Amino acid sequence: MSEFTIRAAVVGDVPVILELIRGLAEYERAPDQVVCDEARLRESLFGAQPDAEVLLACVGDRAAGFAVFFHNYSTWWGRRGIYLEDLFVRPEMRGRGIGKGLLQAVARIARDRECARIEWSVLDWNQPAIDFYRSLGAVAKDEWTIYRINRPEIEKLAGTD
Amino acid sequence: MSEFTIRAAVVGDVPVILELIRGLAEYERAPDQVVCDEARLRESLFGAQPDAEVLLACVGDRAAGFAVFFHNYSTWWGRRGIYLEDLFVRPEMRGRGIGKGLLQAVARIARDRECARIEWSVLDWNQPAIDFYRSLGAVAKDEWTIYRINRPEIEKLAGTD
Repeated sequence: MSEFTIRAAVVGDVPVILELIRGLAEYERAPDQVVCDEARLRESLFGAQPDAEVLLACVGDRAAGFAVFFHNYSTWWGRRGIYLEDLFVRPEMRGRGIGKGLLQAVARIARDRECARIEWSVLDWNQPAIDFYRSLGAVAKDEWTIYRINRPEIEKLAGTD
Repeated sequence: MSEFTIRAAVVGDVPVILELIRGLAEYERAPDQVVCDEARLRESLFGAQPDAEVLLACVGDRAAGFAVFFHNYSTWWGRRGIYLEDLFVRPEMRGRGIGKGLLQAVARIARDRECARIEWSVLDWNQPAIDFYRSLGAVAKDEWTIYRINRPEIEKLAGTD
């Protein structure tokens, strides 16, 4: 029997979701970059048009980890995929297969929704994660780099005629 | 006066969208990887729940280039962003500012929808694109690598108990 259960998060989970987001940001060495609050999460995840979906892994009543994902799209396949934005297990809850359990749950959703693929991003120094993902058959898209523009550059670009 | 116009694609544009997808795949040295057809594009882009949005840049009646995008989500911001899946201008139509025009149109949508950021992926050997994006203030997320699992690995992971 499994030591943990996985379920879709509900609006009452917002405080613990924010706690897990902060836990992951700390692990990623960027704790100051979490600027959202509970109201923003409630609106974006549980409003009329949710922007992403959240799975919670629980040990008893306690949330031990989470997965946050949304659908992306492949023009090569003409089909949606899943982009896994966050996958995190509290440090003291590791070693019980919870991370793999969350990924399996995401894979079942991807299978049931006929998705072309699952993608996610990994920090280059996070060797334990890289080893884990490779063991599941994941392939690194080494030849691609993600570029980003933030709000100030968006405003500037949008305002140019 | 601009030499080109930009508009949202409609279902009648599916044949030219497929042509542009193939043109981009050829430029990316992966022409065999386009497995979708017109029916799949029609369903996924113009069905009841579109998986992505398409902008077309036209010179006269001719589609000169396109942008394909969907919304992603940032847990740090608790806000959606835009992920630009494809941006392509036909080789013979370059040098007229069409690529920048498409990016500006996407930036205006991002601004109007209060998105946190715009992100996209660039092939490491595509120096003209990298120079262009950097000139617009884009920043490379050098420390991140994208990982992917495809259908066979998804089925395998989903089926494990």
